[in-house]
Amino acid sequence: MMAVPSTRTPVVAPLVTPLVAMVGGGQLARMTHQAAIALGQTLRVLATAADESAAQVTPDVVIGSHIDLEDLRRVAAGADVLTFDHEHVPTDLLEKLVAEGVNVAPPPQALVHAQDKLVMRRRLEALGAPVPRYAPVDSIDDLDAFARTLDAADGAPLVVKAVRGGYDGRGVWMARDLRQARDIAGRCLADGLPALVEERVTLRRELSALVARSPFGQGAAWPVVQTVQRDGICVQVIAPAPGLAGESAAAAQRLALRLAAELGVVGVLAVELFETTDGALLVNELAMRPHNSGHWTMDGSRTSQFEQHLRAVLDYPLGDTDAIAPVTVMANVLGAPRGPGAPATAAMSMDERLHHLFARMPDARVHLYGKAERPGRKIGHLNFLGTDPADLGNLRERAELAAHWLAHGRWADGWDPHEQR
Amino acid sequence: MMAVPSTRTPVVAPLVTPLVAMVGGGQLARMTHQAAIALGQTLRVLATAADESAAQVTPDVVIGSHIDLEDLRRVAAGADVLTFDHEHVPTDLLEKLVAEGVNVAPPPQALVHAQDKLVMRRRLEALGAPVPRYAPVDSIDDLDAFARTLDAADGAPLVVKAVRGGYDGRGVWMARDLRQARDIAGRCLADGLPALVEERVTLRRELSALVARSPFGQGAAWPVVQTVQRDGICVQVIAPAPGLAGESAAAAQRLALRLAAELGVVGVLAVELFETTDGALLVNELAMRPHNSGHWTMDGSRTSQFEQHLRAVLDYPLGDTDAIAPVTVMANVLGAPRGPGAPATAAMSMDERLHHLFARMPDARVHLYGKAERPGRKIGHLNFLGTDPADLGNLRERAELAAHWLAHGRWADGWDPHEQR
Repeated sequence: MMAVPSTRTPVVAPLVTPLVAMVGGGQLARMTHQAAIALGQTLRVLATAADESAAQVTPDVVIGSHIDLEDLRRVAAGADVLTFDHEHVPTDLLEKLVAEGVNVAPPPQALVHAQDKLVMRRRLEALGAPVPRYAPVDSIDDLDAFARTLDAADGAPLVVKAVRGGYDGRGVWMARDLRQARDIAGRCLADGLPALVEERVTLRRELSALVARSPFGQGAAWPVVQTVQRDGICVQVIAPAPGLAGESAAAAQRLALRLAAELGVVGVLAVELFETTDGALLVNELAMRPHNSGHWTMDGSRTSQFEQHLRAVLDYPLGDTDAIAPVTVMANVLGAPRGPGAPATAAMSMDERLHHLFARMPDARVHLYGKAERPGRKIGHLNFLGTDPADLGNLRERAELAAHWLAHGRWADGWDPHEQR
Repeated sequence: MMAVPSTRTPVVAPLVTPLVAMVGGGQLARMTHQAAIALGQTLRVLATAADESAAQVTPDVVIGSHIDLEDLRRVAAGADVLTFDHEHVPTDLLEKLVAEGVNVAPPPQALVHAQDKLVMRRRLEALGAPVPRYAPVDSIDDLDAFARTLDAADGAPLVVKAVRGGYDGRGVWMARDLRQARDIAGRCLADGLPALVEERVTLRRELSALVARSPFGQGAAWPVVQTVQRDGICVQVIAPAPGLAGESAAAAQRLALRLAAELGVVGVLAVELFETTDGALLVNELAMRPHNSGHWTMDGSRTSQFEQHLRAVLDYPLGDTDAIAPVTVMANVLGAPRGPGAPATAAMSMDERLHHLFARMPDARVHLYGKAERPGRKIGHLNFLGTDPADLGNLRERAELAAHWLAHGRWADGWDPHEQR
């Protein structure tokens, strides 16, 4: 007998909300949660503790370790997709999850290029992407042999890098010559730490080409930005990169989109680039997640990198990546030195500092991570939108002042609100 | 003995995060949580159920009732301030909380003007603010006496309003003449529902002047917007109100800022205005919380109304209220009719509808509330930013199409993606 269609249909349509699981409970997960709220999604995070940045603000938290298969299974259970706020999950665990049917984005065979610098360099070389000259270092002889291939040989500055595990300048050592590089590489070898050596490129500046790619194959690129580093940590981002020729910017975007496709990236891909003094672009690092060089998009682009990452891993069509303002400057707030000898500013809470910042700069866009302040730790960032690219110097100065103030509770330009009364 | 200052200061500065308690777990609380995350604050909500819009996305939830003093005490405990996502908390309960030392924002003596239409009308009249002609209705005689004062007398259309408890068109009845108004008022009187009667103003359109005020006394005004209603529910907002003379817009902003100051508002104040056919502005309603007419600020203004509300109730300096784009259109997504006779679209989930929306309109800014779909219920909203005010017609049409699509799963213009291939 044929089923008779019911004349009664439910008045209340069931609520279907995609569930995204994210490994890591840091600020990237925290900001992804903000984006997930708008899209009606649920973000579940794997955090190491209940007071971690993202765990403070989302109710769906799994406490556990990213190197524990059971914990990874728990966070992935029932999720539409499993993604990351960092690159530290071992490849073999991810491959197990994939074999068990978990939708991992980016997939482990793509992610490994953001985890293993040697795998990445070799693959990029094979793809014809421009990279600094490099060599794996299994012995001091390898290092010496590499140095001989460089124009300046013994006198050339070198970079020694740990193949895995580095971030924010950790695992990267600058050596002024072969002798110092030998010392560093020697210590790596003694510690059993796989390392590689690279030529130290003569830089004009660093750039970042941020793109997103969906499983369907759609790609979207934001404007190429300039990143400003201090002690290996990004302190400022300028979007778009000032004075970058349209042709170079387009080439960087094309390169990033091509790498995303060739490597099978799903989600956001940051391609960190060196712009050499002769204007060439070389790939420095890859990150496959929302990235510090994309924090400007939260206020400066039609679609933030966090929303785009969610859209990409869930295979939604990607959002408009246009910039909202002619120029946006992002400044990281890094925990200030504390203790003996440091200015006695700890007495002023972050809450009070925020009051003063807003009083001086009502246009500052503030993003705090809910993290305790430790020296050099990223505890927040600020975005400033400018209407006139010619006024970039002033915008950068204001961003720098604001970030310094939030970290130190002291205006670097000596500004004193009490004097202004 | 004098205390000797320690030379050891903690390396980790303690994390001080303001705690804001919000009565109500609806979409306004949900979106306030998004803003609280950026400012490093904690939002605690009083929700009626764990699956309410805001309770889904924030970990700090108190389940209870807004008319239960114990529940209100629980949500307020330890909070820096208690604020609202609706106006339904009885004044006497709020006064008890204030007497117990709770920092209630807006304070009950201000909030009552958004709760009781008669108190509001009388106070506004006393302040010289323009309002429609009105009268309290304690008997049918009151109604008749009021009708006689109008130019058209018996033939004039009237509006009967419940003095308390109305929102989204509820508690407001349009009467085409005195006879129908008598019927409505008669039913209110029989139910013991305090009511008032107003002249039905000949409208050009409705506007909203949104401002914020801090306890310190700082005020900030967003551009005045036009609100478009259908069946008493706001369906679209255009920011800024097209064709509104600069002088009128400034007058509306000044009026709203003055009312905020005179009434002692703390937080966001929405002043809903009638623009009459002769260009006069009359105050229709007040709301003292983030308001539907301010949803455009999430994508269209430097500072969203949700961040501004938090800044105001915590007495931070207020943020820049400039518009980001020359024009922004907000469209509400209202649950579509379901059941017999309605198009069979329930089969397509909101998730699927979102995919199709993003495919057609990559610039749509989507805000979903995590609410089950019921006919006419506000389940989300969309923002569209335009670069050319002359193109407003197209922008409004796209916003309308998008909102209709998300509600119905059917493109009102007959667009079929399969035909486009």
